[in-house]
Amino acid sequence: MKVDGTHYRAIWRDADTGEVMILDQRWLPHNFHVVPLKTLDEFAVAIRDMWVRGAPLIGATAAYGVAVEMARDASDASLDNAWDVLHETRPTAINLRWALDDMRERLRGTPEADRPALAMKRAGEIADEDVETNRMIGVHGLEIIREIAKTKKPGEPVNILTHCNAGWIATVDWGTATSPIYQAVEAGIPVHVWVDETRPRNQGAQLTAWELNSHGIPHHLVVDNAGGHLMQHGQVDLVIVGTDRTTARGDVCNKIGTYLKALAARDNGIPFYVALPSTTIDWTVDDGVKEIPIENRHESEVTRVFGKLEDGSVTSVQISPDGTPGENPAFDVTPARLVTGLITERGVAAASREGLLGLFPERQTTAA
Amino acid sequence: MKVDGTHYRAIWRDADTGEVMILDQRWLPHNFHVVPLKTLDEFAVAIRDMWVRGAPLIGATAAYGVAVEMARDASDASLDNAWDVLHETRPTAINLRWALDDMRERLRGTPEADRPALAMKRAGEIADEDVETNRMIGVHGLEIIREIAKTKKPGEPVNILTHCNAGWIATVDWGTATSPIYQAVEAGIPVHVWVDETRPRNQGAQLTAWELNSHGIPHHLVVDNAGGHLMQHGQVDLVIVGTDRTTARGDVCNKIGTYLKALAARDNGIPFYVALPSTTIDWTVDDGVKEIPIENRHESEVTRVFGKLEDGSVTSVQISPDGTPGENPAFDVTPARLVTGLITERGVAAASREGLLGLFPERQTTAA
Repeated sequence: MKVDGTHYRAIWRDADTGEVMILDQRWLPHNFHVVPLKTLDEFAVAIRDMWVRGAPLIGATAAYGVAVEMARDASDASLDNAWDVLHETRPTAINLRWALDDMRERLRGTPEADRPALAMKRAGEIADEDVETNRMIGVHGLEIIREIAKTKKPGEPVNILTHCNAGWIATVDWGTATSPIYQAVEAGIPVHVWVDETRPRNQGAQLTAWELNSHGIPHHLVVDNAGGHLMQHGQVDLVIVGTDRTTARGDVCNKIGTYLKALAARDNGIPFYVALPSTTIDWTVDDGVKEIPIENRHESEVTRVFGKLEDGSVTSVQISPDGTPGENPAFDVTPARLVTGLITERGVAAASREGLLGLFPERQTTAA
Repeated sequence: MKVDGTHYRAIWRDADTGEVMILDQRWLPHNFHVVPLKTLDEFAVAIRDMWVRGAPLIGATAAYGVAVEMARDASDASLDNAWDVLHETRPTAINLRWALDDMRERLRGTPEADRPALAMKRAGEIADEDVETNRMIGVHGLEIIREIAKTKKPGEPVNILTHCNAGWIATVDWGTATSPIYQAVEAGIPVHVWVDETRPRNQGAQLTAWELNSHGIPHHLVVDNAGGHLMQHGQVDLVIVGTDRTTARGDVCNKIGTYLKALAARDNGIPFYVALPSTTIDWTVDDGVKEIPIENRHESEVTRVFGKLEDGSVTSVQISPDGTPGENPAFDVTPARLVTGLITERGVAAASREGLLGLFPERQTTAA
């Protein structure tokens, strides 16, 4: 999407040099750093140290990393090494492994001389496919926003609340939860976004607010505590969030705090939608609360907060007393009963086994 | 309660000098500053600039302020001036006005020569009455904790979640929501407290965590987003919060985010109690969501976070991009239907008109 009027993807090839460029997201929202990734090691560092994040973007970045390495050494040994080096950067990331496997399989059956060109072509396709998936999520989600807009007075915005960052910089472009929002704006529908700051890592304040601010979409930052009050007072028309993992029956594992917003939405009769590429559906899991293990991250994320000082430097401050320990569950599970619908690239499904199989009938056998 | 083994109140007279001493709470949790308040102006500054906060503590501080001024000049003009100067520091604080009226009425009918001693005696009584009110809240709340403890294996703690700071430093001693917790510890019942950080002002991280840490009560700091997940996984036995204002039918206006925790408690079958002195019941209001206006505070509380740098200095950092506005509703209302019970100094009432009138029958006529 746009940054001060110029369109960007989160990863792209420079039109002049052919170099692979990324937005180094560590410095957001305070600095906009675009950097080239020139070597396999640079790609590995960028993924491991979270210069790029978000499952779809990690996958595309890994694919480009293989392509850059093939240009240097297209041997089988080099290919296997690239797979290993990139895979160990975020070993639990499903999209990373998928992209690496896809690249290796296609390249193995190809003469070495053809590999550099094929690899770069395929990496570009993986990026383009992600863009198209997210665009289609937006096409379907846009209709939900359009229906709500019809109930508004002329010029009155549709108020959308979102949590964490399921935005374009977590993907190659469009984002998942944000794609319907960007497309509503393109369709001329007035929208206003309530951005949950999303403690402990503040991805809402640091990333989503930056995206919307850079693209020029009306929004306000709110603390994670505020959503219930806003919903009680008619200030939220719709909630759209992303997800890290959706179960076969439609339970949604997403950033910690999502469940609380789903409860408030239900209590106030407000639609609660989850936007996702179908690749994040885990057809092997049913009961998300019981079956999905939730990662406990380091307590320093709870006891400290990052931000910008008056002099422009970025640092962290300790908010709690010395000696107070923190507990830091990173995700929670929103049961399907609280989810109005799942917005996928194929359309909007009810959050149920039947709903999902209706859109993905080819999964009938695997979702036993 | 205790700070590293020594018992403190939040306001007291020094046994040797007779000076009125307070804990200057602006420096918590990073520094423990005890200061004397020697003049009317110093009392006014301490209240206005939030060296002390919490409705009960503000009332007691104002009473001591009148007493100190009477020792300097016990005339009617001085008494009226003290009322005016102290009242304008926090003009919407109910307890402040109540304490000032109480002091003035008693002193007006007393010869000037007797006023200094009477004023100091009455201020001490106001402080003692607050301590006793909060102690009784704890006596009644303790029984709730004791019942839950009976269902636990030996040594297994009762897990209590709280939001914001309804602790001893918001009162003269014991606190409201914390009083049952301190009394459970005194009764030898193992407890563990989940402390919501309570954005935007982080009173949980800065004040409640400091209290519990200083007194030696097991606790963990969590982000406001975490409570729902903890409840889903059996890690919360009980929620106890305070309140700024309770309506005649039991709706509870408290720090923003309380409502979300009440929703999660109900969804998981966990008792949700509110601890309050009966002075915070507003018998003139019924429907809290519709009738209570919610203050919107400055957006900088949302876009910035206070904390301690590595060098020990305390400052604030900006967490959001330049240009992103914040919205900052300070309180929300938890409907009575989500409240298991109201813990008052007279006992535990159902959150309903009938429940409250059962404990406070003298209000029958006013609550028409």
